[in-house]
Amino acid sequence: MSVQHRKIRMGMVGGGEGAFIGVVHRLAANLDGVIELVCGAFSRDAENCKRTGRALCLDDSRCYTSYAEMFEAEKALPSEQRMEFVAVVTPNHLHFDVAKQALESGFHVLSDKPATFSLAEANALEKIVAKTGLLYGLTHTYLGYPLVKHAKQLVQDGALGKVTKVVSHYHQGWLATPPSEDNKQAEWRLDPKTAGISCCMGDIGVHAANLVEYITQDEITELCADLTSTVEGRVLDDDGCVIFKTKQGAKGIISASQICVGDENDLSIKVYGDKASLFWRQEEPNSLWVKYQNAPSQLLRVGVGELSSEAQAAIRTPAGHPEGYIEAFANIYKDFAKQVAIFGSDGLDEAEVPGIEHAVRGMAFIENVVYASQSEQKWHTLVLDANELK
Amino acid sequence: MSVQHRKIRMGMVGGGEGAFIGVVHRLAANLDGVIELVCGAFSRDAENCKRTGRALCLDDSRCYTSYAEMFEAEKALPSEQRMEFVAVVTPNHLHFDVAKQALESGFHVLSDKPATFSLAEANALEKIVAKTGLLYGLTHTYLGYPLVKHAKQLVQDGALGKVTKVVSHYHQGWLATPPSEDNKQAEWRLDPKTAGISCCMGDIGVHAANLVEYITQDEITELCADLTSTVEGRVLDDDGCVIFKTKQGAKGIISASQICVGDENDLSIKVYGDKASLFWRQEEPNSLWVKYQNAPSQLLRVGVGELSSEAQAAIRTPAGHPEGYIEAFANIYKDFAKQVAIFGSDGLDEAEVPGIEHAVRGMAFIENVVYASQSEQKWHTLVLDANELK
Amino acid sequence: MSVQHRKIRMGMVGGGEGAFIGVVHRLAANLDGVIELVCGAFSRDAENCKRTGRALCLDDSRCYTSYAEMFEAEKALPSEQRMEFVAVVTPNHLHFDVAKQALESGFHVLSDKPATFSLAEANALEKIVAKTGLLYGLTHTYLGYPLVKHAKQLVQDGALGKVTKVVSHYHQGWLATPPSEDNKQAEWRLDPKTAGISCCMGDIGVHAANLVEYITQDEITELCADLTSTVEGRVLDDDGCVIFKTKQGAKGIISASQICVGDENDLSIKVYGDKASLFWRQEEPNSLWVKYQNAPSQLLRVGVGELSSEAQAAIRTPAGHPEGYIEAFANIYKDFAKQVAIFGSDGLDEAEVPGIEHAVRGMAFIENVVYASQSEQKWHTLVLDANELK
Amino acid sequence: MSVQHRKIRMGMVGGGEGAFIGVVHRLAANLDGVIELVCGAFSRDAENCKRTGRALCLDDSRCYTSYAEMFEAEKALPSEQRMEFVAVVTPNHLHFDVAKQALESGFHVLSDKPATFSLAEANALEKIVAKTGLLYGLTHTYLGYPLVKHAKQLVQDGALGKVTKVVSHYHQGWLATPPSEDNKQAEWRLDPKTAGISCCMGDIGVHAANLVEYITQDEITELCADLTSTVEGRVLDDDGCVIFKTKQGAKGIISASQICVGDENDLSIKVYGDKASLFWRQEEPNSLWVKYQNAPSQLLRVGVGELSSEAQAAIRTPAGHPEGYIEAFANIYKDFAKQVAIFGSDGLDEAEVPGIEHAVRGMAFIENVVYASQSEQKWHTLVLDANELK
Repeated sequence: MSVQHRKIRMGMVGGGEGAFIGVVHRLAANLDGVIELVCGAFSRDAENCKRTGRALCLDDSRCYTSYAEMFEAEKALPSEQRMEFVAVVTPNHLHFDVAKQALESGFHVLSDKPATFSLAEANALEKIVAKTGLLYGLTHTYLGYPLVKHAKQLVQDGALGKVTKVVSHYHQGWLATPPSEDNKQAEWRLDPKTAGISCCMGDIGVHAANLVEYITQDEITELCADLTSTVEGRVLDDDGCVIFKTKQGAKGIISASQICVGDENDLSIKVYGDKASLFWRQEEPNSLWVKYQNAPSQLLRVGVGELSSEAQAAIRTPAGHPEGYIEAFANIYKDFAKQVAIFGSDGLDEAEVPGIEHAVRGMAFIENVVYASQSEQKWHTLVLDANELK
Repeated sequence: MSVQHRKIRMGMVGGGEGAFIGVVHRLAANLDGVIELVCGAFSRDAENCKRTGRALCLDDSRCYTSYAEMFEAEKALPSEQRMEFVAVVTPNHLHFDVAKQALESGFHVLSDKPATFSLAEANALEKIVAKTGLLYGLTHTYLGYPLVKHAKQLVQDGALGKVTKVVSHYHQGWLATPPSEDNKQAEWRLDPKTAGISCCMGDIGVHAANLVEYITQDEITELCADLTSTVEGRVLDDDGCVIFKTKQGAKGIISASQICVGDENDLSIKVYGDKASLFWRQEEPNSLWVKYQNAPSQLLRVGVGELSSEAQAAIRTPAGHPEGYIEAFANIYKDFAKQVAIFGSDGLDEAEVPGIEHAVRGMAFIENVVYASQSEQKWHTLVLDANELK
Repeated sequence: MSVQHRKIRMGMVGGGEGAFIGVVHRLAANLDGVIELVCGAFSRDAENCKRTGRALCLDDSRCYTSYAEMFEAEKALPSEQRMEFVAVVTPNHLHFDVAKQALESGFHVLSDKPATFSLAEANALEKIVAKTGLLYGLTHTYLGYPLVKHAKQLVQDGALGKVTKVVSHYHQGWLATPPSEDNKQAEWRLDPKTAGISCCMGDIGVHAANLVEYITQDEITELCADLTSTVEGRVLDDDGCVIFKTKQGAKGIISASQICVGDENDLSIKVYGDKASLFWRQEEPNSLWVKYQNAPSQLLRVGVGELSSEAQAAIRTPAGHPEGYIEAFANIYKDFAKQVAIFGSDGLDEAEVPGIEHAVRGMAFIENVVYASQSEQKWHTLVLDANELK
Repeated sequence: MSVQHRKIRMGMVGGGEGAFIGVVHRLAANLDGVIELVCGAFSRDAENCKRTGRALCLDDSRCYTSYAEMFEAEKALPSEQRMEFVAVVTPNHLHFDVAKQALESGFHVLSDKPATFSLAEANALEKIVAKTGLLYGLTHTYLGYPLVKHAKQLVQDGALGKVTKVVSHYHQGWLATPPSEDNKQAEWRLDPKTAGISCCMGDIGVHAANLVEYITQDEITELCADLTSTVEGRVLDDDGCVIFKTKQGAKGIISASQICVGDENDLSIKVYGDKASLFWRQEEPNSLWVKYQNAPSQLLRVGVGELSSEAQAAIRTPAGHPEGYIEAFANIYKDFAKQVAIFGSDGLDEAEVPGIEHAVRGMAFIENVVYASQSEQKWHTLVLDANELK
């Protein structure tokens, strides 16, 4: 039997003119033709909001100047018209409230990271998600790459043996000098009122930590941290190093920086086991190195040979047709849409979307790192509850 | 003033279940949210066609089992509903007739390459395009990459000096052994009845030739060719080498092969001038090397520094967020949609889509190469008129 | 005027059969034809010593079974026959005594690193060098690479602006599993009686620290360290991470490891300034990346364009003829031989050989890192005097 | 039993001040400490010759201003003093006569390539070598690389299956513009009186052909060629392309060029079989790629895992300590010295030095290519006898 498929209806909060990540979210949502953008609260500026909506072929009636208004209005629409989930792409300080109101209005949430402004908010959000029973996804984009999924599988299958050391770098250079005045991206990320207590660790360090924990399927339990505000006059960190220990006994290093002149979006990870090691780098995402003790290294490539089923499901084209960042992002959207489609049914959901636990662990990583950086003591135990961090 | 944008309506011929390139065309059409698939003649098999359409969220009424029927039915629809252009993604032997009927029914055409089954058909198609005055685009995907556009600009701006030598390889390995029986992609490409007089040169060599002519803005005028059917029992070529001379006095080499075991989709080009040279490779499309005589080489990257305006317009994300094959393909679609949108208006069209001249030159390249390969004479003048090739 | 050149006469302590680094020292000494090996105390085993000497075309009379005997005997030879300097290539615990006796016997010393068994010995050696007034060189091989010399010059010339962050990795994998019983290299390096208080930091971490200080011409002043003995049963570290601050205000990370399965001799360094950054990696030593904020990266290559005069003097072949580890090593030998040749003359010596200050700083790095690793306090001030480390 | 080793005594013709390749030959001869330079006819200019000799620590009495004189004088010396072989490093036009006189005077010969000025000379030299029964070696340097030796073994062992296609490029850029007046290297290479009938093919194309035949252990039997004199005023080729067929049924392409601006010494080879393919590139000589159909590629590295015994014997340092061009060159010298040492004995000689057959095939390649390039016919059978080429 073949039923007619329908597109999942999405709304968006944030992503008006001048925004960066909102555009990417929309490209990702478009790619596979399974999601339809039906409404948005793109900007508090009514004109910006309307212009954005029109450029996206939306009717003015579905462009709202506040997310509260949007949730209200959409709830009132017939169920086959109203949005089913909301993509949250505002600056950090709004994430929590948008997600909270959306969930409490009955809408699933797919949020940009970091999940919230603070760990306390993340702790609170976790409760709301549990209470509403709705879907909550977090766009930890890099988990959408096929070879990241395969790397996880390799570790899980024991291909590396016991993991002993992990090194992850996330180096960018765009904040190496004071940004120009009209750089909105830089402005809100460097402002504690919109970004939270960290710039570099909150914006990108958290991706590295997430990647470490995802690929190793292990947890960072202790850390030693040193954050730096390199450029004069900055309140928040633009660079930092974290040494860590994991639950299963590995050690590791995360170096995150936004002052690495000449580096673009250089996220990489090396995982060393006692049998083999792996290496992956975001800027060449279709290659995964697996290296052995005194035997030839192997270069695994997207589309070549057998990859894990999760990896395979995340590939759209044959070998040698490079897929990139937008495709990885679209994998998260595609998987989330699948979850929305089967929500409430008995259907088995194999799609894996980073969720609320990633949200809490991510915020915990950020706040614990900031705390540890300010301490004179070397090692700190990572805690997940904001109340335990004085 | 801000008007509401609308999506351009697309139909598709070909691309039913089991097809490869049709899927890519749809991803490319989806990406930027400016095109809407409204109908399709995906397969002559009615069930396949309907299943494909449903999976794409199309109404059964817009799924047709013949393109003739589709053109007829769509023409009868109100203008604000009917498709505006058709994407042709069938095997080669149908390209001409689909394009011909579409144009004669008043629809613009965006065709997969090679444009037609034979040079004679391409010559005929050129006349039909001219007569109807409608848009004809050819998805020479690789021209959609930002750094290919920038490479062209560098040559045009004289950054390389006088071009002296060009080397382009297009090496794949997937036909190195006899393909399995259920490999439809291999089957029709190796069959002269569906593919035409060449497999390797028609499928991929023509991309290399197109890239050479596009980047250098020069024309191949003379060639010496040697084609091979490496795997026993094959009628058509699976490998070949072409040495050529250009109008402006450069020399060059094209090596195209489908028997290069271990190579994925390895299209690359080196252009040498008397001042500098450039190197680009499709599998790492976000990097462009420019090399100098006795001075450091430069690595140009998508998103870093100033690129040509055409290149800039083809980029969606910041530096270090790799865009790939689908994005390049989507650039062709986006540009073609823009042309469709302003068709008939006085609006200036800066969008550059490979068109009917590329179609003719591509088919001429294929047939001239086959002709030259069979000759004992070294050099042949490339002719564009099928009648001049006995 | 053209005088006949003569070869500088060298003796060697260590480097008998089964040794590794002694062989490399001899290849390095041979390469440029300016040094002649005239004698050796290759092994305490008389047969091994003699066999080694004969394989090296030495007369039995110049093969000694103890270095004390060698210094005595050589001193007694006519000045135009006796060795002029001694290469010390024994395990670490003998370095000091060999160097001490050699210097006190009137011979210049070129020693493998680390310079001594302990910082206290290095402090003592510094005084002996000063007292004897003779030459003391340390084979910090990696400083012999042309592009390392050029990197230093770039920093010195301000090409990078103010240095803000330095990341150096030295990853090997050969000790990831317990070594086989007959692996002499592993045996003495893992034994505190022959290696000293550190394996990994003493063997390779010290190279990374040396490279950091050399290229930046800055000094590590504070450090936070974490060493690990990954493989069960090991007393000494086989892995470690050091976070540091420098005199001129940069921050940095050194990751050194011998348990990085699949890594060969992967020493690399990234130096970030506020204007530009550089990247060099020992396994591809003829390439040096210089990267800029929002402008194309530059790839500097040995033999291409203008390099610093020190770099230029360290190159033997034209561009594209890869020189490697032995050539870098030979540059240290060549420069040391030049110093020996002009020793005592008024001649200006521009040849730069890492000397006794490198010896002291290297041993200080090792001991301070071990001390800091054992502490619960995060930051420690690096001290050069062994007495200040309780 | 352990006998005292002795160094093999070498003389040199050519390599005076201003020469390039002579210096490299001497470094290569020095490296392993098994060869001693005892005399030279470095230059016809007596002062240059003497200065060169002195810089090399030679006594004036062993510096000759003509090779005829040198052979005469050395022959007269006691056998334990006189040179045993001569290294020929003059411009091409002298190679034959030097080799001929040396052989006829009883000295073994190790010659730079191309072996002679013409194929006719190579044919004649082959007879002289046979008649004298002495050793003749040709420094086809690239065969000295460990991974080239291993690549040959892989093909021989059937690891690639049946070889179907070979692509070798040798691209340099140094002659892309008219060289400066004092560039002696360029001057004699571009002059038919000193270089012979080809510049590019004779200087570097012949290396590519040699590499193709060595690794595949196959022979080029037919060729189609196109040579170009790109820079105005040049008599000889500075660029060329050769398409070829081999005895065992493979096809191939050689592109050689000296006008590839920005390329250094870019010799590379790809060998495709029906099971696997390999890729090697001279500028990164310690890496060898082996690629498979739909399985991960393997990166073989010098020092990692099991290599062929010939490859293993050509390595001096552990993995990750890059060896390069001089080491490859030294392998030829070391192997030749071994042959000289055991000459006349019953000892089995496993050392493999490219010899007189390489000399003849190399010269045949050059002359056949020039001949084929001037022809209007596409394919030509490669002949080894100069008389068969009109």
